[in-house]
Amino acid sequence: MRLTWDAAARDGAARAGTLRTAHGDVPTPTFMPVGTAGTVKAMTADAVRATGAGIVLGNTYHLMLRPGAERVAALGGLHRFMDWPGPILTDSGGFQVMSLSKLREIDAGGVTFQSHLDGSRHRLTPARAMDIQHKLDATITMVLDECTPWPATEEQAGASLALSMRWAAEARVAFVARPGYGLFGIVQGGTYPHLRAQSVEALTAIGFDGYAVGGLAVGEGQALMFATLDVTVPLLPGDAPRYLMGVGTPDDLVGAVTRGIDMFDCVIPTRAGRTARAFVPEGTLNLRNARHAGADVPLQDGCPCPACTRHSRAYLHHLFRAGEMLGPMLLTWHNLTYYQALMRGMRDAILDGRFAGHAAALRAGWRRPDETDDP
Amino acid sequence: MRLTWDAAARDGAARAGTLRTAHGDVPTPTFMPVGTAGTVKAMTADAVRATGAGIVLGNTYHLMLRPGAERVAALGGLHRFMDWPGPILTDSGGFQVMSLSKLREIDAGGVTFQSHLDGSRHRLTPARAMDIQHKLDATITMVLDECTPWPATEEQAGASLALSMRWAAEARVAFVARPGYGLFGIVQGGTYPHLRAQSVEALTAIGFDGYAVGGLAVGEGQALMFATLDVTVPLLPGDAPRYLMGVGTPDDLVGAVTRGIDMFDCVIPTRAGRTARAFVPEGTLNLRNARHAGADVPLQDGCPCPACTRHSRAYLHHLFRAGEMLGPMLLTWHNLTYYQALMRGMRDAILDGRFAGHAAALRAGWRRPDETDDP
Repeated sequence: MRLTWDAAARDGAARAGTLRTAHGDVPTPTFMPVGTAGTVKAMTADAVRATGAGIVLGNTYHLMLRPGAERVAALGGLHRFMDWPGPILTDSGGFQVMSLSKLREIDAGGVTFQSHLDGSRHRLTPARAMDIQHKLDATITMVLDECTPWPATEEQAGASLALSMRWAAEARVAFVARPGYGLFGIVQGGTYPHLRAQSVEALTAIGFDGYAVGGLAVGEGQALMFATLDVTVPLLPGDAPRYLMGVGTPDDLVGAVTRGIDMFDCVIPTRAGRTARAFVPEGTLNLRNARHAGADVPLQDGCPCPACTRHSRAYLHHLFRAGEMLGPMLLTWHNLTYYQALMRGMRDAILDGRFAGHAAALRAGWRRPDETDDP
Repeated sequence: MRLTWDAAARDGAARAGTLRTAHGDVPTPTFMPVGTAGTVKAMTADAVRATGAGIVLGNTYHLMLRPGAERVAALGGLHRFMDWPGPILTDSGGFQVMSLSKLREIDAGGVTFQSHLDGSRHRLTPARAMDIQHKLDATITMVLDECTPWPATEEQAGASLALSMRWAAEARVAFVARPGYGLFGIVQGGTYPHLRAQSVEALTAIGFDGYAVGGLAVGEGQALMFATLDVTVPLLPGDAPRYLMGVGTPDDLVGAVTRGIDMFDCVIPTRAGRTARAFVPEGTLNLRNARHAGADVPLQDGCPCPACTRHSRAYLHHLFRAGEMLGPMLLTWHNLTYYQALMRGMRDAILDGRFAGHAAALRAGWRRPDETDDP
């Protein structure tokens, strides 16, 4: 039996459903915390579970370089290594090869690059990306693709797309299917509607267990991202999960769920937590701000995380001012709890057929400038 | 009713007992994790509790400068601020004034110094040290003293001692007693037995709820530290708790409990945890060492901490190599768990009248050079 997704309810284009995998079921829409190097930064696996997360993401690029896919395999796979028995999605490594490695050279067969850690040379091909993710024991494997940069001319985006689609076909052949495991294709095509359509057509012809929308959140802005989703998502198969890669802010998530996306990953909540920024229903707070120094109130009323139930904003402010590790730990915990509650709230609203009103209420909350540290 | 300590058993000079305070009872001997700035570094308060700690230490110097004693008081005291409803002992601030502040000038009335944070001028007197610790809501308050450096001539140690004893008398007058709260005096006198005796005599004449031995673990070495305890501890009242400040390694703790000490604090387990060093029954391990890279075994068999129950040495090695915050988090958790288990094991042995054999077995375990990364 393959990895599957089935719908529980639809409300407009928004979908509530369940992803069924070898490592357990995940209600969707879902947000996947990013566990780059086999750890969600500043969090124990127990803490990640406590936030309500059902699936996490691992970065193939980082793990293949350190500790190495073969080592992770010898240690029983990524689930056991990082104490996450639930589902894990791994990216293909391609995105980080482009953004992090020292030198990289793309050819028709793959990409050759030097590690940003020690300069050692590596090669990633569509088949090797499958092999690595298999060794990591990824529940969901992503095809190797070229993330088309923005801006790109139509010609550039088209050529990049052609390469990614060839690689997607090679990945499909190399992928070793196992019950409850899956392989996702990645739609590219920049911001060109007909290229996106061409990409969907190519991927669905190959056939994947899920479809990711890639090449967004790379500088094009929210309006263009949503416009691209508007022309892309309706073309995707209705019975497969849809994953918007690398997105985003709470507002981005609401807009993308509105447009029919089921899965997300992003470093925003974890990175923000490490830099004293907290997501709350009123917007975002910067806990370093002096106005929180004496604030004997919880970060967010009703939030079940320890930052909110055990401490005051004043304490969190103090931790960041004093450079204490507990600041990033507590604020990461809070932000991930906020994100999971956001997803659960949207899912409940979809199930109840009141998604549009729910989304509007969320947006109205984030736009109270007297309650946020953001301009 | 004052803070009290009562003995449950004695085995040689070693004592098992219970410290009874306004914030709960603590079985002794006990190790107090150091929560310098209102947080035990890299640990949530829940995690500190999970290690078995019954009492923690706060540093007055750090807290008076940031966020400030008055602010902590306005926020409900240190217990509430850091989510530690149990007993808290605070030091007087004197030790850090000497070691951390930019400029300090001691006179008969106290010490004037510049903050290492912003250069602002502050003055600490015996009475102000009481006031600050009162505002912090310390369960156990320490008198302001001068920690006599090592080496010191007999004349230097004597003059320093005379100052500390005057300050101790002033502190006793200034301390505001509350039920279940206590004030500890600090024995000084360097490594000179007759000065130590003179100090004990002065302090017991004033009368305190407990007695600390200060001025040790400042470079004199373990043999001289134990020799000083040998001539000091027997002079202390038998019905009051005894606290050896700033000590130490597991081997130090066993030696000091052997000599009748009940309470300890030290940054060693937490600092070691942040720098990849783990305490285990076989000695200490450096998790950065390449020999752990593929070690699919727990850090310590039978240890209940998450580093040991959820992960392999190989994973811990990976976290430190990758610079991930979870490495310090897990290893701090482990080391504090190890220290608490060490104290509990000694207490049980004292209660059972088998302390000498237990101590010998602990020492034998730590001296297996093939099992440790230490020379």
